Formats: sequence, structure tokens, C-alpha cells
Amino acid sequence: MGEWRGERQARDARIAAGRAHAGGKVVPAGAVVDLLEAILRPGDRVCLEGDNQKQADCLARGLSACDPGKIHDLHMVQSGIVLPEHLDVFETGIAKRLDYSYSGPQGARIAKMLYGGQIALGAVHTYLELFARYFVDLTPNVALIAGVSADRDGNLYTGPNTEDTPTVVEATAFKNGVVVAQVNEIVDTVPRVDIPGDRIDFVVEADKPFYVEPLFTRDPAAMTETQILIAMMAIKGIYAEYGIKRLNHGIGFGTAAIELLLPTYGEKLGLKGQIATHWALNPHPTLIPAIESGWVKQVHCFGSEVGMDRYIRERPDIFFTGADGSLRSNRAFCQTAGLYACDMFIGATLQIDLMGHSSTITQSRVAGFGGAPNMGSDPHGRRHPSDAWMKAGREGQIVGDPALMRGRKLVVQLVETFGDKLVPTFVEKLDALELARKIGLELAPVMIYADDVTHIVTEEGIANLLLCRDADEREQAIRGVAGYTEVGRGRDRAKVEDLRARGVIRRPEDLGIEPLDADRALLAAKSIKDLVHWSGGLYEPPARFRNW
Amino acid sequence: MGEWRGERQARDARIAAGRAHAGGKVVPAGAVVDLLEAILRPGDRVCLEGDNQKQADCLARGLSACDPGKIHDLHMVQSGIVLPEHLDVFETGIAKRLDYSYSGPQGARIAKMLYGGQIALGAVHTYLELFARYFVDLTPNVALIAGVSADRDGNLYTGPNTEDTPTVVEATAFKNGVVVAQVNEIVDTVPRVDIPGDRIDFVVEADKPFYVEPLFTRDPAAMTETQILIAMMAIKGIYAEYGIKRLNHGIGFGTAAIELLLPTYGEKLGLKGQIATHWALNPHPTLIPAIESGWVKQVHCFGSEVGMDRYIRERPDIFFTGADGSLRSNRAFCQTAGLYACDMFIGATLQIDLMGHSSTITQSRVAGFGGAPNMGSDPHGRRHPSDAWMKAGREGQIVGDPALMRGRKLVVQLVETFGDKLVPTFVEKLDALELARKIGLELAPVMIYADDVTHIVTEEGIANLLLCRDADEREQAIRGVAGYTEVGRGRDRAKVEDLRARGVIRRPEDLGIEPLDADRALLAAKSIKDLVHWSGGLYEPPARFRNW
Repeated sequence: MGEWRGERQARDARIAAGRAHAGGKVVPAGAVVDLLEAILRPGDRVCLEGDNQKQADCLARGLSACDPGKIHDLHMVQSGIVLPEHLDVFETGIAKRLDYSYSGPQGARIAKMLYGGQIALGAVHTYLELFARYFVDLTPNVALIAGVSADRDGNLYTGPNTEDTPTVVEATAFKNGVVVAQVNEIVDTVPRVDIPGDRIDFVVEADKPFYVEPLFTRDPAAMTETQILIAMMAIKGIYAEYGIKRLNHGIGFGTAAIELLLPTYGEKLGLKGQIATHWALNPHPTLIPAIESGWVKQVHCFGSEVGMDRYIRERPDIFFTGADGSLRSNRAFCQTAGLYACDMFIGATLQIDLMGHSSTITQSRVAGFGGAPNMGSDPHGRRHPSDAWMKAGREGQIVGDPALMRGRKLVVQLVETFGDKLVPTFVEKLDALELARKIGLELAPVMIYADDVTHIVTEEGIANLLLCRDADEREQAIRGVAGYTEVGRGRDRAKVEDLRARGVIRRPEDLGIEPLDADRALLAAKSIKDLVHWSGGLYEPPARFRNW
Repeated sequence: MGEWRGERQARDARIAAGRAHAGGKVVPAGAVVDLLEAILRPGDRVCLEGDNQKQADCLARGLSACDPGKIHDLHMVQSGIVLPEHLDVFETGIAKRLDYSYSGPQGARIAKMLYGGQIALGAVHTYLELFARYFVDLTPNVALIAGVSADRDGNLYTGPNTEDTPTVVEATAFKNGVVVAQVNEIVDTVPRVDIPGDRIDFVVEADKPFYVEPLFTRDPAAMTETQILIAMMAIKGIYAEYGIKRLNHGIGFGTAAIELLLPTYGEKLGLKGQIATHWALNPHPTLIPAIESGWVKQVHCFGSEVGMDRYIRERPDIFFTGADGSLRSNRAFCQTAGLYACDMFIGATLQIDLMGHSSTITQSRVAGFGGAPNMGSDPHGRRHPSDAWMKAGREGQIVGDPALMRGRKLVVQLVETFGDKLVPTFVEKLDALELARKIGLELAPVMIYADDVTHIVTEEGIANLLLCRDADEREQAIRGVAGYTEVGRGRDRAKVEDLRARGVIRRPEDLGIEPLDADRALLAAKSIKDLVHWSGGLYEPPARFRNW
């Protein structure tokens, strides 16, 4: 019955070919190209681990140095397009097709290559969706992953940035794939086993430690009073109003400001213990003051954050940590937590249209979505009630049998009416639609669709879209908080005033907030140095954030 | 900073207390009660592994034998309420609160205990939702799990029924919880490491092998011609029509009939390779003929199925297997695959109302939902197109900008108009609503909400709800396939004929299907024995399914 073992036999042959360049499972850094040329086949689906933070950079360099005559037309299936090498392979023909989730730093280059037809794009996924496809129709033939250390049997220690690794390895190793791990060092015994050695075929001792990007560090010194005003409105008008305990925050300055206002403004409002207790969140340094003030009960993390390791180690009651003491993150489970166990997703976006559709993709930058489409969607499969969720459901249900009432995920967009360089956030039409037309995408790259968004908060006020009865009210509610943008100026003043009278739109004064009180003095920490101080010296910010 | 290590210290104290009854990590079966009384505390959140299939039954017996004076008011957070002991603990006061997903065999008893107030019910979740909460607000203090074997360091081999174990252990072990594994035997070296030993605190050598329920075995001998007719309509009117390649099947006879018609009726229609290639599915014995006929490319499994082990071992190109050769299942990833990477969910239900809401919960049985709410929902976070998904999206989009067109998950209910004992499937009002009222549930236990259902297939025809323009059309479309039930007889004949003319309702003759052709001769296997034959003797059905 050899016909049923073709994949398995091919895997065994690849491993045997790779073993020629290894001592047992161990491969010296200098032999990476030889190893990859031995185990890869043209047309393979390959996951070159590029997470939101951790990068298998040694293996990325190795892959880009392979001979395109031997290794070509690969189908890359990976979360992040982050390093230059991730795109170099498409220029040389080593890779051809791409399915991914996030491309922050390479957003401009990827847009150019898409226009130029150098990349055959499958789709821009949300993380959990890409992980799902790893088990169905995008199962990798080869996974190239990264960890902190491994023993000679391949037992892998990822350190705090576990991130996507267990998911990628599970899909690959159990479906006849080959797994290669780069590690910073080979050790006799790993501090903890994040991936058992029998799932790892090769271990490469990298020439230097893997690269990690500090993506979630926001310097309080850069926070503006407008952001503080918006944060105050969100806390009083949404967090307190709905009693949000379980939540996810985006990565922008707006939500970082909320984190820094909890121990000050939130405390004054008597909200401690009432809101923001359980989190699906990376270890944001700006959450330190709230943690130290006793606001936070528990945080599960997608990944880690540079400089937070010692702090996390000393706070095991708050974070998920291993027997070794360091963080255990897990992107797949944290995205699942964000989808099904959080009552609110709140984050920023670049563009919002008249219906509330939003996108971070512009014509010159294809940044990808990361987790936003997943966590910023109303999960129809949810079957457990919470006060926050049921209240949102009641507000949103216009017709129908009350006995069939269900709740709604709160999906909040926190934006200033004008973004960087005074580009308006509110637009008649998303740039994403024009991009889709130009490169022939079947599906426009919308980050969050209008029917999932429940609130938009700007410096002008909160628009509660749940309370809108029709498309026209919805448009006026959005125009009504769009400030001096063209969209905002196009409002029907009478209708907007009517919406305000009904509480669909709430201005700062309707919430009892005096805009002049939105002062940097309210921030629990006004600088990175303050965060270090709050942490008792445990937080060790990367050099670029140190100016003292 | 001891205040930040309270949980961690409490964990260490529990483990130290447990060690008194162990040799290293190993605990004899006779000491289970002592161990549990040593490591548990009143009010603990406990996951007593009760999966869809695998049961930590030795530990369940041990828990139910604990002294309620010492161990009481536990909050049980587990997928399945399957064994009598799972409910016994609520009668003795050992447990008090319950959050769960599925209670098939205990559905009647749990209903009684809910009415009687003996259980404080949190919610009836879908699996992935309960897993999500393990990382946010239902993190277990203690996990009591089951595996096939372990070594003395705790490295655990789950065998093919990996199921929920990695998820439960990850949430517990990394958040200061204690993990106890029962195993069938202690070995020197496990065949593969499903869970690394550093996440397992105690290993109990069970008095007998853990219990597994063969939940997914449907005997072809029991399939009726009505089921075959419905299956033919589904294949021709839905699978072929939309070109469904990636899918999940429910566990009923209806979908089992489809599996058995693929190599016969499907082959005749020329559909091989065009439909049903990639699956999120347990290893259904009725899928064997389709696999052997080359229809199936890949199957990822939630769990395993009794008797399928040898067959799976010999088909590593189809199934996910470990280096040891046996299946690696994983409920969390397979549910994620079903949510985000499948274009269709098709399954049965007990009751459907006039709008299309459905439930398997009746006033006398609270069976739970398992994976249906998750996989039978339209995931708004999905961002990758497929032909099937886009076609459904186009059909469903009545208004809106075509540039913002997105797809739709196909969610198909496959039912006979009258179920067991001639109870009508179609009802004016779901029993679930009455149950919710009686026991004071905030959220009615609906399995799939109407707005997620796209098609209903009965012996009378297919109702395509995507094409319905308003609630009235929807009601008539449902009545129009509800046969001789009261709901069916209440149809407006003119409106139903109009819907048929528009293709919203399709009768067998509209699909070119002659009901008289729906013959058992079409089944690729007509008995369990036929399935064994198809498998080349590799499938080993449990005794209860052998009558030869």
C-alpha cells in the first residue's frame, strides 16, 4: 500500500538528504543553505516563521541565499512579511505565491511588488484564519522556525516569544512535513520544553540571536491631550457604561492612553475592579501602572514585548508563565480568547467610510490586518452571556422576538478625525477598494466591516452605531463625530442634533467631561522612565526608548 | 514582592501536599482520593477531562469519592458531561457551578438537575468558546486529564484521542495550576510526546484503560431511502452547485449517507476532485469508501474514533499522524479549521422554527451543542475568498456596494420533516425558549441562529435562504420544505410556488433527481462489514457494531 505513504516517504527522503549536512539533528549555521537545498522541493508550501514579533531571520537569510535554479516557485504561508529577505525570495524566483497576515514594515514594498505582479497573492488573512488553513488547505511541507535554545534531541525552548511556533509545528510535523528550528544556542537541558523534540527534525545554531521587534511599546511622552480626551470618553462612555471586564486593546496611542488613565481617571470614577480586569493582550509596558495599582487580574498574551521579561517573571499571578518563570505566549489561543472570551475589541484604523467600514490598507501600503478582523468581529458562535455583551445586544436588536435576544461583541474604533500629516480618517470611499480593483483582488481588503463596528470615538464624541435604526442614521452618526473632515462637514445638522438628543451621539459635555481636563497630568506615567519606575526597575526598555 | 506570587506559592504548596501520596510524580491508583484531597481546595475551578470522546474516568471516580466536607463547591469547567460521576459530584456538593459544552448521554439527567437547582449553570458553550475562556476568566486551578501512557518524568502520550488535552494543559499549567494525568500504563519511553513532562505534575496509573465512546460510527445498514434522497439532493443541489471542497460534516445519518454516496452517485455526476477534498472531521468509518476511491485529499480530526486506529496508521497521506504512526487529533485546531478554513458546515438538528433558528435542546434533554455553533456560524473575520464562499456571498447580498461584496459560509441543515417517533422537526417555537424561561437562563440555548443558516434540506426539497428577500419569504421557504408537519401544511401555496419558480425552493425533480432512484443500492457500503471490507480489514469496529 505504498500509494498511501507517498507523502510520508517523501518526508523521510528529505530528512535523509538533510542529515548529510547535520550531526544528528544539529546543523552548523554555515550549512544552512546546503540543508535547505537538501530538504526543499520546487513548489513546496513553506512557513518561514515571521511572527508579529519573533523572526526566524537566520533561516530567512539562508533561504534567500538558496540557488533559484534548485529551489523555486515556493508558496510562502506565514503570518508576517517583516524582513527584507521575506520579499527578496520573490524577486529571485525562489518564491512565487504568498498567503500572509501582516506586513507592517514591508507594507510599501509589498504593495509595489503586488502592483508589479512579482507576487501571486492568495489572500491577506487574519492570524487565526491563516492558522486554520494550515490544517486544511495550506499545510506547510516545510516549517522554518525560531527558538531561544534546543537540546540535541530537538526539544525546543522558545522563551517568552512562543507566539505562532506551536501552531506552525503542529500543522507541519503531524502532516509529513519537515521542521527546522534555528536557536540562539544548543544546550544540554532546555529551561522548559515548548515544543517536544520529536516534532523537530533539524536544529540550526544561528550565527546571532533571532530578531524581535518591540512593536507594542508606546512612549507616554508622545501622548497628546486629544488622545487623552478620547481615552476619557472611552472609559466613561463605553468601559463604565457597559462594565467591560474582558477585553483586547489595539496597539495604538489611543488605547495606550486608556491604559495609563485607569489608575488615575478610572480610579477617580470608582471603576477599579469594575472594568478591565481580564485581558487578551501583549505585555504592553503602558499597562504596568494599572497592574501595579491592582486593576488587572489576568493577562494572556499573543507574544511578548522586548524589555518586559524580568517584569513578567516577577508577576506570575498576572501573566501565563512556565515552570522556568518566563512568559508562555501563544498567538492561536490568545486570538481565540480575543474572539470568544472578550466582550470588547478596541483599536485604531487609518480610514473609515460613511457606513463604518474600515481599513489600514492604502494604495501605497499593504500593511495587513493581523488580529483585528478576528477580534473585531461579532462571533456568532458565542453562547455565553455577560452583562456587557447582553447590553450591547439589547441596544442593537431593533426587531425580533425578545426570547431570542442575544448579545453583541463591542467593537470600538478609536480615532482622531485627522491622522498623521493631517490626512482625514473619514472618507467617502476606502483606498482599499481602489487597491483591490488595481491588482484584481476578488475580495477588497477591508479590516473591519461596518456591520461589526458598534462604536466610533473621536475627539468630537462617541457614535453608538448600535442605536442607529437605518443606514441613513448610521451615516449621520458617523458624520456627526467626523469633525472638520469633509465627511464631518457634510453632516445634516438637524439630524445630527436629533441623534445627539437620543444619545446615539454623545459629546464630551454629554458625558460630563470637560475637554480642558484632558491634561497630560492625568497620565499615570508621562515617560518611559516613569514606566520603569512604576515597575520597580524590572521593565528594561530597549535603547531606542531610553533618553535618560 | 510576595503579593505577586500568591497563586504561584499556592500551587507549590498543593504540589508539595500531593507529593506525600506519590513516588516522584507517580501516584498509585489506590491513592487517587488522597491525592485529590491534597491538591484541591474548596471553590476551585476544575477541568475534569470529559471530551467529546475520551474520558478521565479513573480521576472522575476518584473525585466523586472525595469527602465533601473537605472538597466542596468546585466550579467544573469541562467540555463534556458524559459519565455519571460528572453529575454525581453535584449531588454530593463536591461541585456547585458548571460551565460546559456537550452532555449527550447525560442530557436527560442534567435537565432534571437544572430544573431542581442542583447545578448553578454558567453557560452551555461551543467547544472553542469554552477553550477561549480557559485563557481569560475560566482558567482551571486543577486539570484532571487522561492519556495512554506516560514516563516517570510526566511526558504524556495521548494516543489518537489527543482531543482537548493540549488546550486544557496549556491553560492550567502556565497559570499556576496543577495538572494530574491518568494513564493506562507507565512506560520507560513514550511513543511520542503529546504533552511535555514539565507541564504534568502527577501521573496516576489507572486501574483500567480510559473510556472512549464510539460517537461517530453510523451503521450503513440503518440508512433509509429518505436519507439517501436527501443526500442526493445535497450533493447535486449544494456540493456540486457551489463546488464545496473544504467542509465539515455533522455526526448524523444524513451526512453519513452523503459520505457513502460520493464514490457512487458523486462519481456518476463526475464530481471527483471537484468537491469534498479537504475535511475538518473525525475519522468517520463511513468516509472509508470515499478515501479508498481517491476522493479525499486530507482530513484533520477533532478526536479519533474507536476501531479506526489501524486504518489511520496505514493512511498517513490522508490523516495527521505522529512519528509513532498514530493519529494526532486536536479539537481546538480542528474547530478553528471548521470555523475559518471550511466553506460549509452541514449537519442535523432536532427542531427548526419559522425563521430558521434551530436547537437540539428540548425540555427534557439538555444535550449541549458541541462544535455546531462555532462551525455553523458565518465567521465575520474571514478574509480569504474561495469560489464557494463568494457565490454564497453574492446570493446573499441584496443591497450594498458590489465593491464591498464578501462571501458567506454555507451552513446547511439536513433534516427529515419528522424525526424519531414521528415528532415534527419544524415547530412554531423552539422548546429551548421554554427551557430558558423555566430555569431562568439569560440566553436561550439556540444551537444555530437563523441568520447563519443558508440552506435547509428535507425530503421535500432544498430551501435556499440566501435568496429570500425578507422575513416573509424566509418563512414561506421554510414552510415550503416542511412537508406534512403543521408548519408545512401552514404554507401559502401561491407564495411557495413563486419561490420555487425563482429557485429559492428546489424539489427533487427541479434538480433532475428521481426519488425512486434513491435506493440503498447506491450506498458504497451497505453494512459495517462492507466498511471493513473497503478498509482491507484495517477498520476494526467495536463489538456492538459486529453482527457477523
